[in-house]
Amino acid sequence: MGLTSLRELGELKVIRILERSLGTSPLAVVGFGDDISAVKLPNGKVAVLKTDMLVGSTDVPPGMTMRQTARKAVVANVSDLAAKGVRPLAGMVALGLPANLREQDIHGIAGGLRGAAKEYGFPMVGGDTNESKDLTISIALFAIAGRGQLILRSGARIGDIVAVTGEFGSASAGLKALLEKKVRPKRLARPLSQAVYNPRAELDLGLRLAASGALTASIDSSDGLAWSLHELSRASAIGIRIDRVPVSKAAREFAARYRCKANDLALYGGEEYHLIVTVKPDKFSLARRAARGRLRPIGVVTPRSSGVCLRQARGDAKIAMKGWEHFRR
Amino acid sequence: MGLTSLRELGELKVIRILERSLGTSPLAVVGFGDDISAVKLPNGKVAVLKTDMLVGSTDVPPGMTMRQTARKAVVANVSDLAAKGVRPLAGMVALGLPANLREQDIHGIAGGLRGAAKEYGFPMVGGDTNESKDLTISIALFAIAGRGQLILRSGARIGDIVAVTGEFGSASAGLKALLEKKVRPKRLARPLSQAVYNPRAELDLGLRLAASGALTASIDSSDGLAWSLHELSRASAIGIRIDRVPVSKAAREFAARYRCKANDLALYGGEEYHLIVTVKPDKFSLARRAARGRLRPIGVVTPRSSGVCLRQARGDAKIAMKGWEHFRR
Repeated sequence: MGLTSLRELGELKVIRILERSLGTSPLAVVGFGDDISAVKLPNGKVAVLKTDMLVGSTDVPPGMTMRQTARKAVVANVSDLAAKGVRPLAGMVALGLPANLREQDIHGIAGGLRGAAKEYGFPMVGGDTNESKDLTISIALFAIAGRGQLILRSGARIGDIVAVTGEFGSASAGLKALLEKKVRPKRLARPLSQAVYNPRAELDLGLRLAASGALTASIDSSDGLAWSLHELSRASAIGIRIDRVPVSKAAREFAARYRCKANDLALYGGEEYHLIVTVKPDKFSLARRAARGRLRPIGVVTPRSSGVCLRQARGDAKIAMKGWEHFRR
Repeated sequence: MGLTSLRELGELKVIRILERSLGTSPLAVVGFGDDISAVKLPNGKVAVLKTDMLVGSTDVPPGMTMRQTARKAVVANVSDLAAKGVRPLAGMVALGLPANLREQDIHGIAGGLRGAAKEYGFPMVGGDTNESKDLTISIALFAIAGRGQLILRSGARIGDIVAVTGEFGSASAGLKALLEKKVRPKRLARPLSQAVYNPRAELDLGLRLAASGALTASIDSSDGLAWSLHELSRASAIGIRIDRVPVSKAAREFAARYRCKANDLALYGGEEYHLIVTVKPDKFSLARRAARGRLRPIGVVTPRSSGVCLRQARGDAKIAMKGWEHFRR
């Protein structure tokens, strides 16, 4: 028991040990298990808190610059607030820096942090610097929200429409291309490497969708489409039936060219920062208008017993709860 | 220039590059350069934000358990809020965990986090788990304060009394003992290792001192007594003259036994979480009462041109701006 290493244990078990130990608090309106945490304030509002750490040895693909790396650390945090419909008010950064980094690397990191904060409209107001064996960029974001304003993972109801703000698979195809050094035409390589190096958080879209009043639940897709659907299913105690997997054009072309399954690239990838939402059926057009067309239905919320599955000609196929999990290799 | 490594650059230069790049914001009542950051809220209050990262390879002395390590990561953050007179409302934790850690290590970390949060009376409401080559515990704290309530580093005025809430040197003597494996009697070894393994943040004391209305400035001493005095001097644009260095009994005994300078242990150590405050001269007895006797004067605030110095029989001696700095070895 006590001798099991994290490699056998897997990330989920680690998270469960921490959650069980740290428990719940009456102060926490939202605790562990959603994209963000939220704490009651005396004035009836809530403080929204988020922290997400980027680690060099596991989260930085080959060829990514320091500027892109630091920007991505911020994007990952902003995306979680975007999914809840909340605008970040201020950010903090704690850095772990290998001693062999050079001055230009620090300028790159600083530039990436500044650029991302500007891109999403909030100031970085403080931080902490440390020496570390592994490049570490830990971002913490702070926001204020009305208590009923947050779109949680737990609000999906049977009959709701499941919809996404983008197509999936480019990041995992891009990562595969980078790691396995596949040759490919530039026309295809560019959108794939863009998806890896310069992901975007859908902050404006998330704010507009939340404000529409049409959403019942929302999650960001950073852990992969399949994983995030399972998280919605767990948190809302519902099932989800997907009619079709929203695969990006680039991922489809990559899959055809390099003989892998396009659906797998889209379902079991990660590091893609789209939003996955559930929408009241009678308000779908409202949500679509709020998203200015950038919202596509992919399925429907079903009873919990149906699980998470993909509709196919020969009957529904279960979608595995797979995605990127740390420690397991 | 761009080829200078962090080892040559030093931590201060790194921090300066980051601060200059991230700049200031009209929203930030307190930005970089104090123990915490603070952001204006619409209701006239401020949100207090703090993040401080503990890194295994540089911040964990030999023999420290996972539980003690995780607790210390929290203590370091709480201490900064204590210095400002603010009670933490909620905490977040981002972890970087080496894959060879064992399940019992995770239980130790979880227990240390839980214990520390309970010790200082706030809930840990969320977090993030990652794989890393270097054990990393990044804590973020959140609090709410009145705008005038924060005791900053910048408020010291000429003639104020400089005072501390504890004696210094036990942690650096303890670390020296651990690293150089010196033999020593148990009676001496115990307070030294306690200072290293189980430091305390002076939260209650900090809250009471701030509430007394007698303080003009405050800083926590985690970067060492000398370093912190220089920080007060820089932030308040004043000088400081110390009448005597407050050396702990254990540090004095260690110094005598192992032939090192007791004053140096106390001045140039670090990882000791006392508070260093400046007090209005006519309110010192008020402050002392608030601290229930645990406040001792060590010197006085002087004009900036006098610098930071120690009064000695043969005239004032400059106190060097030295302390623990990452990257330089």
